[in-house]
Amino acid sequence: MELSVAQFSLVSNMFSFTIATLGAAAIFFFASRSSVAPRYRTALMVSGLVVTIACYHYFRIHESWHQAYALSGDVFKETPQAFNDAYRYADWILTVPLLMVELIAVLALPKDQGRNLLTRLVIAATLMIALGYPGEVSSDTTTRWVFWAASMIPFLYIMLILFVELTKSLQTQPEAVRGLVSFARVLLLVTWSFYPIAYAIITLTGKTPAGQIALQVGYTLADITAKAGYGLLIYFMARAKSDAEGFQQDSGDSSRAAVSHA
Amino acid sequence: MELSVAQFSLVSNMFSFTIATLGAAAIFFFASRSSVAPRYRTALMVSGLVVTIACYHYFRIHESWHQAYALSGDVFKETPQAFNDAYRYADWILTVPLLMVELIAVLALPKDQGRNLLTRLVIAATLMIALGYPGEVSSDTTTRWVFWAASMIPFLYIMLILFVELTKSLQTQPEAVRGLVSFARVLLLVTWSFYPIAYAIITLTGKTPAGQIALQVGYTLADITAKAGYGLLIYFMARAKSDAEGFQQDSGDSSRAAVSHA
Repeated sequence: MELSVAQFSLVSNMFSFTIATLGAAAIFFFASRSSVAPRYRTALMVSGLVVTIACYHYFRIHESWHQAYALSGDVFKETPQAFNDAYRYADWILTVPLLMVELIAVLALPKDQGRNLLTRLVIAATLMIALGYPGEVSSDTTTRWVFWAASMIPFLYIMLILFVELTKSLQTQPEAVRGLVSFARVLLLVTWSFYPIAYAIITLTGKTPAGQIALQVGYTLADITAKAGYGLLIYFMARAKSDAEGFQQDSGDSSRAAVSHA
Repeated sequence: MELSVAQFSLVSNMFSFTIATLGAAAIFFFASRSSVAPRYRTALMVSGLVVTIACYHYFRIHESWHQAYALSGDVFKETPQAFNDAYRYADWILTVPLLMVELIAVLALPKDQGRNLLTRLVIAATLMIALGYPGEVSSDTTTRWVFWAASMIPFLYIMLILFVELTKSLQTQPEAVRGLVSFARVLLLVTWSFYPIAYAIITLTGKTPAGQIALQVGYTLADITAKAGYGLLIYFMARAKSDAEGFQQDSGDSSRAAVSHA
């Protein structure tokens, strides 16, 4: 497989852009913990961990891309060292369950209900990624479809929980938050759908240079949206709920404290 | 010794996965200190140090793995630069005594009792690692067995302390914590047993490609469980004990402070 200089550079630049975005998001989520009420700080902490883990993996992915292709005349040719898809799966098996933790943490559901939903979502998310991998690394079409189908079962189960079961408990959330939760669910549905659709297209068409470029660019955009964008929604939910509960960030302003005592 | 591309990549990917997991765990433990009562913060600090030290060593181990094998045609062949086992022992001699510190710190035993137990556990843990190393680097079967046996003495002594002596003092712990302590002890017993068992198997069978792969993958899983997983248990203990003692995280909420003065 040969890539033009423009194709190779586009993907390399997208990977670098993703490192910058995820790294900045990590700092923002960690540093914003003090601006929400204590019960929502776990959600921001987990958002920060997700983008940190993904940022690390994009460093490795960027490095692997540069090892997998070498400039030869006017084009980039494959080297003996294949591009390492496993970094994506290593990333997803850590971060996708944590995305479920973020959502349940920010909803702050009654303890038993939250734990029950979380356990099911985390197990389903882990299964979804683990079942996808054997198909991803196989070049046999039947094997690819079997694992694709197997991985779709937990995917649909997660969507069922998010869109059916979670809907009841939304009534307990402040009104300002309900819209954000609905938006977060749609964002997950749309961005997560990209992965099985891309996988299916590649299974149908085989790997072509244009397909490889579209896939890598698509993955970076989906990862930025599903991790940094989604984390930002979690942050807005945490802020809205903190406001609704009358939380005020300590201003470090002793004059205000003095006034309130007066 | 030759490794297939799949064998080499599996180990390389497991090392990278471990770096991501331990790095994320480090951030989590350090950032979670403020969510437990002050007396348990040392335990979280030490948990953070352990996974930071291990994360660093996995960077070196990953690097050493890539220097020790080179792609030659379809297979990875050993280079003149041998894979460096010493990184693991350098890691363990720092982190294994600290794992004992974590446990004693979170239990917050009466001062004399805690200090006494800690001194014995730390000395035994250091001896256990130091005695294992001369056997690990030896290719003489007798030498390997002598140091294996010598290292098993402090190992069994640590288990004796954890399972017999510590049992009395468990009665002083809140009920919510006792189950977690028991679980942490079993986790240590199971994960720590992996190391001498793996060492013994290699001494019996000699080094084979499949054995080398199983060993490296086993080590990474044991390290993740015994450091990040165990640290998470320590965190849950610290949270449960803080809750039982009525600790509330400082909300930084000046309005509430003003109200409480009114």
